[in-house]
Amino acid sequence: MTERVGRYTLRLRSRPAIAGYAAAVGKKEGEGPLAAEFDRIFEDNTLGEESWEKAESALLNTAVQLAVQKAGFTPDLLDYVFAGDLLNQSIGATFALRDLSVPFVGLFGACSTMALSLGMAAIFVDTISAARCVAATSSHFCSAERQFRFPLEYGGQRTPTAQWTVTGAGAALVGNTGGGPFVESVTFGKMVDLGIKDANNMGAAMAPAAADTLKTYFSDTGTSPADYDMVLTGDLGETGSRLLRDLLGREGYDLLNRHRDCGLLIFDCEKQKTGAGGSGCGCSASVLCSYVFERLRRGNLKNVLFIATGALMSPTSSQQGESIPGVAHAVCLRANRG
Amino acid sequence: MTERVGRYTLRLRSRPAIAGYAAAVGKKEGEGPLAAEFDRIFEDNTLGEESWEKAESALLNTAVQLAVQKAGFTPDLLDYVFAGDLLNQSIGATFALRDLSVPFVGLFGACSTMALSLGMAAIFVDTISAARCVAATSSHFCSAERQFRFPLEYGGQRTPTAQWTVTGAGAALVGNTGGGPFVESVTFGKMVDLGIKDANNMGAAMAPAAADTLKTYFSDTGTSPADYDMVLTGDLGETGSRLLRDLLGREGYDLLNRHRDCGLLIFDCEKQKTGAGGSGCGCSASVLCSYVFERLRRGNLKNVLFIATGALMSPTSSQQGESIPGVAHAVCLRANRG
Repeated sequence: MTERVGRYTLRLRSRPAIAGYAAAVGKKEGEGPLAAEFDRIFEDNTLGEESWEKAESALLNTAVQLAVQKAGFTPDLLDYVFAGDLLNQSIGATFALRDLSVPFVGLFGACSTMALSLGMAAIFVDTISAARCVAATSSHFCSAERQFRFPLEYGGQRTPTAQWTVTGAGAALVGNTGGGPFVESVTFGKMVDLGIKDANNMGAAMAPAAADTLKTYFSDTGTSPADYDMVLTGDLGETGSRLLRDLLGREGYDLLNRHRDCGLLIFDCEKQKTGAGGSGCGCSASVLCSYVFERLRRGNLKNVLFIATGALMSPTSSQQGESIPGVAHAVCLRANRG
Repeated sequence: MTERVGRYTLRLRSRPAIAGYAAAVGKKEGEGPLAAEFDRIFEDNTLGEESWEKAESALLNTAVQLAVQKAGFTPDLLDYVFAGDLLNQSIGATFALRDLSVPFVGLFGACSTMALSLGMAAIFVDTISAARCVAATSSHFCSAERQFRFPLEYGGQRTPTAQWTVTGAGAALVGNTGGGPFVESVTFGKMVDLGIKDANNMGAAMAPAAADTLKTYFSDTGTSPADYDMVLTGDLGETGSRLLRDLLGREGYDLLNRHRDCGLLIFDCEKQKTGAGGSGCGCSASVLCSYVFERLRRGNLKNVLFIATGALMSPTSSQQGESIPGVAHAVCLRANRG
C-alpha cells in the first residue's frame, strides 16, 4: 500500500505501528538529561563481556530483546530484523543478533542507520512483505574510539568540534498491529559531499546531507517545518545543527523552534564534557526509542520528522585524503494512525 | 503486489525485470573460463587509481554506469541504489556511488550482498516503491588481502581451503519494464553459525547458511532442485560446495547436477592457482551479471535459483576467538515474465 509522493518520498498508507521499543545505554548516558527515559542503564560499560565489541553486541541484544518483549511478542514471531552499526563488517549487529534465528537484512548507513532500518522495516510491513520487523542499531564509545581514533589508553585530546560516541542501542518493533507511534512516510537520501575532510567535524560533513533530504521531503510532501511538532536530527551536534539551520535557511526553510538534535539531547555537553554533542549510531537510536517514541505514544508530541545522518568514511578513506560523504534518511512519525 | 509464500519467501507478482546488467573484472578474472562474458576487463588492477580501495570503487562505478547505459537509462532516472561491500564502513560502495545523486540504501551482507541488493531492488520495484533501482557490489583482491589477511608484500602462504578474492564488480538495473531476466521470488536468510572459526575456510562457515535458506525456500515454495535449470551458489568454493551437498542431502534434497558455484565458475582453480575457488562480494556479482543473466536472457536457462552466501566476521571478531556466522539470501530468476 506504499505510494510515492513527489520524487523520492514513500507514503505508507497503512501507517505501520511501532508496537514496541527499547533503549539500553551506558553509564555516562545514564548520567545525562535523559536518564529517566532509558529502559536499561549499564553502570559497567563492559556489560560483563571480554571486549568492547562484545559489549556493544550485548547492548544491542538487550535493546532488541526488550523491544520485542514490550510489544508482547517473542523473537520467533519476527519476519525480519533490519540492523547495522559502525564497527568493521558490522560485527556489533551480527553478533548481537546471531542467535535470534530471524532473517537478517544487514544495513549500512553509519549514524543514519536508525532511520534507515526503521524506514525499511516500516516499508516491509506496509507492503505486506512482513507482519513484524525489528529495526535496531548501536554504538559504543570504547569500540568506536579504538577503531576510528586512538586506543583509549592513549588519552588523545579532542577538538572543540569533535563529538562523543554514545554507548547506547535502540530497537523498534514495527508491526501491522499494535499501539503507536506510527510511521507515515519515509525518504531515503542521496549522498552529499561538500568536501569536508576533518573526521573531528562530522557535524559539518553531515549537515549538507540533512539539508538535502529535508528539502526533498518538504518539497515532495508540500509541508514545512511549521507542520511538525519536532524536526529531530540524529547527531549533528552543535556545529552541524548550526550549519543545517543556515543551509535550510538559504533554501527558504526556517526550522523555527522545532529543531532538536539527539546528540544535544542525550548529554549536558558542558557539564559532561562531550564536546559538540553525542554521536554514533546508538545516539539517535537510544533517544528515538525512548524519549521521542514515548512522547508520541502519550500524545505529548503529535508528529515528529526524524532525520538521522551518517558520515560515510573510514579511517582508510581519510588517510587516503578523501573527503567525507554524508547521507541522511527521514522518517515521519505520527501519534495517531488515522 | 508482493505476497508471502510459506514462512519466509516473498513472491513478486509483477516479476520485476533485470533491464540492464554489467560486470567489470580484473586481469586474472579476465584470464579465466568466463573471460568472454565480462563487459570490461581491466588489465591494470589499479584502474589508474592511487590505492586499491579507490580501484575497487572505480570498478564498481564502471559496472553501475554500464548497467544503467545498457538498460537505456541515465542515473537521474534511478529511484534507489542498493549496494555494499566488504571494506570497512563499505567505502568501496560509498565512494563508487557518491556522485550518482541517487538515494543510497547501504547494505551489509558480506559475500551475500549481490543477492541481498538484487532482492531488495526487486521488492522495491514490485511494491511500486520504485520504478528503477540498481543493485550492485564489488570486491578487489588487493584491498581485501590487506584488510582481512596480510599486506600483499608479505607473500603469506595459503591453506588448501582458502579462497581467492575476486577483483570484480557486478550491477543490475531492476525495473518495472524492460527485457529479462525477471525476478520471481526472494528469500532472505537467517544467520547460521555451526562454530567454524577458520577464516581460511569460509566455504565451511557459509555452507550451513546456504543449506538453511535453500531448505526454507524449497519448503516455502513446494519445489525441489529438479525444478530449476541451475541452483547457483555464490562463493562456497570446492570445500563449501561439498558440504552444502552433504547438508542438503541429509534433509532429503539432492542437488543433482543442477548445482554450480560462482567461485568455481570464474577461475580454473588448478591452472590459475586460486585454491578452493573465487570469493568476495564481486565473485557472485560478476558471474551473475554476465554469464548467468545472459543465458537467462537468451533462454538457454529457463530458471536459476541464486543463493549468495556471506561470512559475517571481521579480523577483530576472529582475533577475539569468535566463530563465523554465515548468512545466505536466495533470489529466484526466470527467463520469462509470465
